[in-house]
Amino acid sequence: MGYKKGNGSNVVIALGGNALGDTPEEQLELVKQTASSIVDLVENGINPIISHGNGPQVGMINNSFAMSFTVDKKIPEMPFPECGAMSQGYIGYHLSQAITNELKKRGIKRAVANIVTQTVVDKNDEGFKNPTKPVGAFLSKQQADKKAAETGLTFKEDSGRGYRLVVASPKPQRIVEFDAIKDLHDNGYIVVAVGGGGVPVFETPNGYQGVPAVIDKDRSSAKIAADFGADMLVILTAVEKVAINFNKPDQKNLDKMTVSQAQQYIKEGQFAPGSMLPKVLACIEFVQSFKGGKALITSLEKTALGLAGKTGTLIVAD
Amino acid sequence: MGYKKGNGSNVVIALGGNALGDTPEEQLELVKQTASSIVDLVENGINPIISHGNGPQVGMINNSFAMSFTVDKKIPEMPFPECGAMSQGYIGYHLSQAITNELKKRGIKRAVANIVTQTVVDKNDEGFKNPTKPVGAFLSKQQADKKAAETGLTFKEDSGRGYRLVVASPKPQRIVEFDAIKDLHDNGYIVVAVGGGGVPVFETPNGYQGVPAVIDKDRSSAKIAADFGADMLVILTAVEKVAINFNKPDQKNLDKMTVSQAQQYIKEGQFAPGSMLPKVLACIEFVQSFKGGKALITSLEKTALGLAGKTGTLIVAD
Repeated sequence: MGYKKGNGSNVVIALGGNALGDTPEEQLELVKQTASSIVDLVENGINPIISHGNGPQVGMINNSFAMSFTVDKKIPEMPFPECGAMSQGYIGYHLSQAITNELKKRGIKRAVANIVTQTVVDKNDEGFKNPTKPVGAFLSKQQADKKAAETGLTFKEDSGRGYRLVVASPKPQRIVEFDAIKDLHDNGYIVVAVGGGGVPVFETPNGYQGVPAVIDKDRSSAKIAADFGADMLVILTAVEKVAINFNKPDQKNLDKMTVSQAQQYIKEGQFAPGSMLPKVLACIEFVQSFKGGKALITSLEKTALGLAGKTGTLIVAD
Repeated sequence: MGYKKGNGSNVVIALGGNALGDTPEEQLELVKQTASSIVDLVENGINPIISHGNGPQVGMINNSFAMSFTVDKKIPEMPFPECGAMSQGYIGYHLSQAITNELKKRGIKRAVANIVTQTVVDKNDEGFKNPTKPVGAFLSKQQADKKAAETGLTFKEDSGRGYRLVVASPKPQRIVEFDAIKDLHDNGYIVVAVGGGGVPVFETPNGYQGVPAVIDKDRSSAKIAADFGADMLVILTAVEKVAINFNKPDQKNLDKMTVSQAQQYIKEGQFAPGSMLPKVLACIEFVQSFKGGKALITSLEKTALGLAGKTGTLIVAD
């Protein structure tokens, strides 16, 4: 069984939010373009592992259950980790269907596998001491206080629109399904995995246990790329290259950064938190933890050119 | 990579509805018992592939989106195939976590992989001519008529409670992710797959395309078991053995049926449609399409005994 791998490099590709959409119909259309860019790489011999974000989708799923619970108590509220697993099923189904269809269209005999992934995080992660990431439904103060008392979770007022669950964004420690992902990849499958960074789990004396948290998908992608010894981690975003002095008259697009240069730019506040900064940090994590690896930040459309060394911003060890 | 397979038989185990629950909390508890029974088999050298139903769960997800759409139009309605993919993520996450935890508890070095699965169905399947299976939310006549006009789908009045989408229950033709499931199994993984029978897809000139339908999970399990050449298909239900003259003074529990005997009982109307009948039919499909295979119907608790030939109802070729 299995498929013949390409003779090119092994890359982990982290898809950005613009690879997906706000509704199932939008997403189904957008993943076709994503699939086309990915299959371009496969045609060039590249062996990709695909990860994706799930912020808007997991929020939508969580909201949907919270909202319908208020209408009909027979619909249960859905905990955040379970919503993450659902989002992996939903997005992964669209992605693997679109990639499979594109492979068939071009007559390429390769197959896609979508692995629902759990990611271990540390109970003592700094993030859990002061969770800051608002997720899911807006609640009244009374609802939020009640839930906080019941669950021990933290709820905070969000932009005057109500109270929301705030969760930590802990560092990914280990990908539970790593072996299966690697075996499938080694057997020539195009694997979709660590969607939304993976469902966050604690490792307890009784085994893995889901925890409401959000793992940065770029960091999980960096982790899997490092464990894997991938030739390259590719983080896709809306722009072709990382820039310093972004949106200023002296904006400069970068072809390449060493880790020290990247760290210097970070000190200067060149990269926006919640936007380019976490992507650059994930790239640094990867090239520092796997010496042979390089990281690339570019746009979906430019991925093939970027992998050919012709565009994008490369992040390399010093 | 990979794991050492057990030296026992290869079995496809189709979990019944009683392996799961109505709420996420219930399900998380119930899958622990399920995991314990499955890991008993693994300890006996058996190599299982696990499938599961999703009727209540996919209905709940579909309802949740339909209901919240009426409250807030920003939450999109979620098509039925996408809800099926979500249910695979959700149930598969619980199952693989519980089985992984049980394996770790017993010190067994094996891993679990949950593959989101698509199942090809035939556009010309008889079922599509007269869909009969009601799914998802209850609508008013006006809502149903509007949706029918927009989508071409069929809505029918259901038990005086409103109108519901009715879908076909077509025969599974092919499991799209079969190769990945088989490779993982051959490499010693305990694979969770074809959840809810798989997301039903048509094969069109443009590739696979999701279709609102419900595939009987026992039939998809029979299909994968046959393709696989599994030693046994195990269909789990609430009772230890199949019975004739069920619930009558002369009820007789069956240890074994040949295909001809089973067909005779079916003619006599011995098995309830929507309950034991589809399970017996799936067993017949399996032993007819794979000559080396046997099928077993029993309860979760009795699975290990059943596989040891000590209980359950065995269905064999003539």
